[in-house]
Amino acid sequence: MEERPLTGISPPGRIAAPGEGIGLDELALAARNHGLPLEAMRYEVTPAGLHYVLVHYDIPDTDSSTWRLTVRGRLRTPLELGLHELRALPSVTRRVTMECAGNGRARLSPRPVSQPWLVEAVGTADWTGVPLRAVLAEAGVAPEAVEAVFTGADHGVERGVEQHYRRSLPLPVGEDVLLAHTMNGGPLPPQHGHPLRLVVPGWYGMAHVKWLCDIELVDAPFAGYQQATAYRYRRHTADPAEPEDPGEPVTLIAPRALLIPPGFPDFMSRTRVLRPGPVRLAGRAWSGHGPVVRVELSTDGGGSWADAEVRPPGGHPYAWQGWHLDWTAAPGSHTLLVRATDASGRTQPLRQPWNRGGFGNNQVQAQAVSVIPR
Amino acid sequence: MEERPLTGISPPGRIAAPGEGIGLDELALAARNHGLPLEAMRYEVTPAGLHYVLVHYDIPDTDSSTWRLTVRGRLRTPLELGLHELRALPSVTRRVTMECAGNGRARLSPRPVSQPWLVEAVGTADWTGVPLRAVLAEAGVAPEAVEAVFTGADHGVERGVEQHYRRSLPLPVGEDVLLAHTMNGGPLPPQHGHPLRLVVPGWYGMAHVKWLCDIELVDAPFAGYQQATAYRYRRHTADPAEPEDPGEPVTLIAPRALLIPPGFPDFMSRTRVLRPGPVRLAGRAWSGHGPVVRVELSTDGGGSWADAEVRPPGGHPYAWQGWHLDWTAAPGSHTLLVRATDASGRTQPLRQPWNRGGFGNNQVQAQAVSVIPR
Repeated sequence: MEERPLTGISPPGRIAAPGEGIGLDELALAARNHGLPLEAMRYEVTPAGLHYVLVHYDIPDTDSSTWRLTVRGRLRTPLELGLHELRALPSVTRRVTMECAGNGRARLSPRPVSQPWLVEAVGTADWTGVPLRAVLAEAGVAPEAVEAVFTGADHGVERGVEQHYRRSLPLPVGEDVLLAHTMNGGPLPPQHGHPLRLVVPGWYGMAHVKWLCDIELVDAPFAGYQQATAYRYRRHTADPAEPEDPGEPVTLIAPRALLIPPGFPDFMSRTRVLRPGPVRLAGRAWSGHGPVVRVELSTDGGGSWADAEVRPPGGHPYAWQGWHLDWTAAPGSHTLLVRATDASGRTQPLRQPWNRGGFGNNQVQAQAVSVIPR
Repeated sequence: MEERPLTGISPPGRIAAPGEGIGLDELALAARNHGLPLEAMRYEVTPAGLHYVLVHYDIPDTDSSTWRLTVRGRLRTPLELGLHELRALPSVTRRVTMECAGNGRARLSPRPVSQPWLVEAVGTADWTGVPLRAVLAEAGVAPEAVEAVFTGADHGVERGVEQHYRRSLPLPVGEDVLLAHTMNGGPLPPQHGHPLRLVVPGWYGMAHVKWLCDIELVDAPFAGYQQATAYRYRRHTADPAEPEDPGEPVTLIAPRALLIPPGFPDFMSRTRVLRPGPVRLAGRAWSGHGPVVRVELSTDGGGSWADAEVRPPGGHPYAWQGWHLDWTAAPGSHTLLVRATDASGRTQPLRQPWNRGGFGNNQVQAQAVSVIPR
């Protein structure tokens, strides 16, 4: 099914007014979707149900026994593959840290109204599947093909466009792009794309099309909603007479480090309580632009910074890296900041880089802690 | 560890001002915890990761190989049981629908500031474990014991009280109260109490203590924070000079029916889009007070009601029951309402029953649908 206009349903996109609280529409998304509870970064591989989830429409009702992936368009031999056939092909497993492109959106000011993530839309899984390159080689890519368009089975309307969720990648695709049928050694859970999804290591989550049912090779860049309208870094155009900024596409994950909150929490404020003395501060850091080469911590709100010890990526170049730094907690209130720098030289900003859709906000995390006498 | 005061950390409990949006503290809870995406009610048993989760503090770092459950207090023989020993005891499996006592809180006006659930804090699982009665019989309950106090390993501060999460049940406990070590046939996931939790069929979620590490039999009613301060139905006391209403304890789940949203959604508003013609409306209904005996639907915002067909509980008296009603959707905007009545005669209210903590709000769900020409 092609995308088509559907008017009168979608509210217009908007930016929250200064000081405007989260609305019931944003809350309904926050209640459906969920982030990683930050203490679960203790697990190198995120257990089922703790990995972040963002579903645009409904989780479709799928059946692995009848599922078909069609591969068509600008190629020599169209294919139609069932799960049984895909599972019989040579597979590889990749440990991949995935992050929603909208992570950090609710920290932007003014706030773009959409799924209101704070910092927790991340997770790491072992994805097993067939390299997409192998399937495309079997189909025989035509010389004029420039992109592959991936269609998921989830269906809805978004900003006036009725659509299946659909995204493209330029050809040739990377060698680690997978048609994944297995997550952490078992079948994909419904909310992670059962029975088949695309995995595009290093890219934000919008590229990893879930409930994958069709791949079409095309001879011109895909201009569908999720590619050309959503998921672009756009400046603000305050003047309605000015044409909207077409923006740059959202692609690879920007670097980020997160702290496993130390001590114990207050239920409502999530402030952390510690007793004075030595404490190991630890967490994870990742980037889609290359290995993280430096993690710095500030325990005084940014006045001074110290280098943490960062674990090298080892055999998992697409997975987050552990880091730690020992700290002696003195009584009082502190703000802990943590900042990652990757091998490409990118580093996390202290102030938010604003954009219209609220994408890629990797400003440094600030964690309030209260160190109180025993 | 006993509960003790910890001042200067917890913000005071409060009620949101009229029209006040959800704050960042409420949003941080909504991002950590999560509800059941309503389309997942299509599954009789909720798959891993879709069941609602509410964690008061942090998910503790547990190890099933070293876990110990202590059973002590007013009994003949104190016990200390490892997981291996518990798994060797005779076990039963119960299909249980569990719901958070705070479900519906964010629909209250004015809104108590806490975890801001709309309607989706529910899920159904097959829990396997040892009947608590069998373990207590082995320990030998003393005649003066009146309650069992259950301690979880999660630790935090809440409204000025530092505590492990702790709740009690009156003795004798029901025959279906379980020490559950297995969920849907596998080990408990971390967020559902790994490796051991209490399951109290028919009760709201606060009774099902996760990460269960200690059971103490006591000779006086437990007056801990989660029993005597939180989880009570309190009236509002607007006058600060008036003593706070001690309220009634939150116990069994009030009846509720939910609709699997028909058609497909708009991403942001979650409005549903349908084409005109016949459509089967279906969903689930449950109550802790007995089987659901009636589910009524209104497709005109409450002007008229029709009876749905309700599946009898069959072999699963503690699980939700499926229901359905065929409807012919006519073009236009409609508000669908659904209302359950249980065998005790309790029925869902159309208007919210307000209480200070925002507990047990089972007002009928309203689902906006737009039926548009093909």
